[in-house]
Amino acid sequence: MEPDNLNKEQDQNSWAVNAWTLLSKLRDQSPLIQCITNFVSMDLMANTLLSAGASPAMIHSIEEIQDFTPHVHALCINVGTLSPAWLPAMREAAQVASKAGKPWVLDPVAAGASSFRLKACLELAGLKPSVIRGNGSEIIALSKATIGATKVLDSSHESMDAMEAAKSLAQSSGAIVAVSGAVDIITDGHRVVGAHNGVSMMQKITATGCAVTALIAAFVAVDPSHALEATASALSIFGIAGEMGMAMAKGPASLRMHLIDSVYNLDQAAVSSRLKVTSL
Amino acid sequence: MEPDNLNKEQDQNSWAVNAWTLLSKLRDQSPLIQCITNFVSMDLMANTLLSAGASPAMIHSIEEIQDFTPHVHALCINVGTLSPAWLPAMREAAQVASKAGKPWVLDPVAAGASSFRLKACLELAGLKPSVIRGNGSEIIALSKATIGATKVLDSSHESMDAMEAAKSLAQSSGAIVAVSGAVDIITDGHRVVGAHNGVSMMQKITATGCAVTALIAAFVAVDPSHALEATASALSIFGIAGEMGMAMAKGPASLRMHLIDSVYNLDQAAVSSRLKVTSL
Amino acid sequence: MEPDNLNKEQDQNSWAVNAWTLLSKLRDQSPLIQCITNFVSMDLMANTLLSAGASPAMIHSIEEIQDFTPHVHALCINVGTLSPAWLPAMREAAQVASKAGKPWVLDPVAAGASSFRLKACLELAGLKPSVIRGNGSEIIALSKATIGATKVLDSSHESMDAMEAAKSLAQSSGAIVAVSGAVDIITDGHRVVGAHNGVSMMQKITATGCAVTALIAAFVAVDPSHALEATASALSIFGIAGEMGMAMAKGPASLRMHLIDSVYNLDQAAVSSRLKVTSL
Repeated sequence: MEPDNLNKEQDQNSWAVNAWTLLSKLRDQSPLIQCITNFVSMDLMANTLLSAGASPAMIHSIEEIQDFTPHVHALCINVGTLSPAWLPAMREAAQVASKAGKPWVLDPVAAGASSFRLKACLELAGLKPSVIRGNGSEIIALSKATIGATKVLDSSHESMDAMEAAKSLAQSSGAIVAVSGAVDIITDGHRVVGAHNGVSMMQKITATGCAVTALIAAFVAVDPSHALEATASALSIFGIAGEMGMAMAKGPASLRMHLIDSVYNLDQAAVSSRLKVTSL
Repeated sequence: MEPDNLNKEQDQNSWAVNAWTLLSKLRDQSPLIQCITNFVSMDLMANTLLSAGASPAMIHSIEEIQDFTPHVHALCINVGTLSPAWLPAMREAAQVASKAGKPWVLDPVAAGASSFRLKACLELAGLKPSVIRGNGSEIIALSKATIGATKVLDSSHESMDAMEAAKSLAQSSGAIVAVSGAVDIITDGHRVVGAHNGVSMMQKITATGCAVTALIAAFVAVDPSHALEATASALSIFGIAGEMGMAMAKGPASLRMHLIDSVYNLDQAAVSSRLKVTSL
Repeated sequence: MEPDNLNKEQDQNSWAVNAWTLLSKLRDQSPLIQCITNFVSMDLMANTLLSAGASPAMIHSIEEIQDFTPHVHALCINVGTLSPAWLPAMREAAQVASKAGKPWVLDPVAAGASSFRLKACLELAGLKPSVIRGNGSEIIALSKATIGATKVLDSSHESMDAMEAAKSLAQSSGAIVAVSGAVDIITDGHRVVGAHNGVSMMQKITATGCAVTALIAAFVAVDPSHALEATASALSIFGIAGEMGMAMAKGPASLRMHLIDSVYNLDQAAVSSRLKVTSL
């Protein structure tokens, strides 16, 4: 084997070891993850967190933030079904979490769908999230602060645009930025890695993106000082579970079931043999 | 074969060809369907649309209507978990859609459950929906503008009442009106057709009615000038998927899974051999 | 066989006969159950009620209470995703139900998570619920009126604390109090019984606790004068369905599906052979 290939294989192996270590910690520690999230995603998000070993808490009322948020291990804010009444609680929860040194993760769903939504996302992105995860068009909308199409990007040209947008957003926000796609991109603004696991049918299940953002929050909760690695690990674990689920699925609804079962059952052998993270 | 039977068979065949053509277009064009819907239905509705090939967008805030609604291909409004705060956005979305020439579909869930709800449904029905779909008691409540029982109707007498109510509502609102039941009734106020596919266990799954209304929106989006045919096609496709799912199901929860998988996997052979639409 | 064992077996048998009788009545009468519940639980709760034979109605707007609530057979109030806007409707629905002599059931989700939530739960507990069901920490928080940890209790010491808290809460509120756990505890403040069915993986599915509270409402609806027995029966039936589902499940998501299917399919033989209720 050539030295270069050997290095790559060792690298691959250390990513797999790290991802497995984080998942094991998550199962042991059962971190409490507060989710202020859209209505569509609540069921899948809570079940994803439970199957991974975390404790979800869907608590969104501003009256509860000061009492509750200081006790959580991480916070996930998702603007999917945004309305003005929810925004103050999102803002306050982000601030309380930051002040208490707890990681928080932002999912800027459909950031470019309206100026109201874009403004809300930009404001939240300015409140020091640990991680921002979106699809290409969401990250581009947020990075360029423009509203417009929210279609999934698929051409290589657009993927390249998304990568540049992600690096720029990471630098301006101080967050790790993750872009979901055929290959997930994760960057701190300088270093860029790609997470290659997953299957395309996961896009035919509503809220899988939202669910993996919550899983990122859980992974960052158990290793807050390595948010890039935790983010890449969560995306890889969810992708691997999707691949294993796909082997049993007959369509999107059975894939959804097998995906969650697979997150619950995932073992070290599957992580070692399947995980693929590369430097980009 | 008698000429009459031959005509019926040719008719049946043309309905099947049309339904398959619409489903194929839907898969190709992936129309963007905005859903302002009740909390219970959001997950199943989004997954139904995704499995059929459409792009769901659960965006309900009035702040976003002017920016977002002009870009959608159809709009679905469902009053299931209605509260006063949601009503202005429903009204505005319906008006923006109508003005932009986009079809919109109304699901008057439990229209007769309270005077607040009935009033809201009557107002929405007056905003030029392309299609209104409900069960018999909902269509009767809306047509007669009376509150009262919301039980599923099953006697033939009540079915006849529902048909008359549907025709009357279609004439007064200008919408295609669909009544779900053992046989689904679809009318423009003059012509009446029946869609015969489906299985009774679908009523044991929450939000299947809501989901098929959204599917109607997606079908009308790809053929807005033939709303009656698109409505009958969507009801037939969902019913056929239910029949195919039923062959694999052990109860309501596994039927729900197989139903969605079957929408995703539906092919022309199944549509041709199973679809049954008749003139009533 | 010793006389004591014989008595226990007869006792066991009469619990099984009673639970089966109530489930049969529920399937026959299809009681209308209004649920004012958290967003996360709506789908599972409605599907649990449908699979058991009840008619769920997720109607939460205060504008509808006076028209609608007098017609329901029972009411379920669950504070999971509480916000101030929902509280007046919960209060009014509880009062309307009480005044109309309809049973209502309270699920004080995460009662100790904040002072806002605790205060709301205490107020609702004072409005004469027929049944209050929670986990150990929720019942302790409510009984002692203190906020604090909301973790699942598992040591035997804490179980004993929960039992004392349940008895005390039952006496002060006049409600039957049920505490979910490895063994579910049901008490009227004096008599205490334990329901032993169920599997631990049910805790890895979000909203199973919420769903069984709604099932309790449905059981109490068909036998309101024996709320303790109805509560123990509902918990047992759901637990038995979980055990039967577990035999087919590969993880939490497939368990969720098989659980609901099993509620739908449950027959007298399974109830007779599996049900275990004891005096504590």
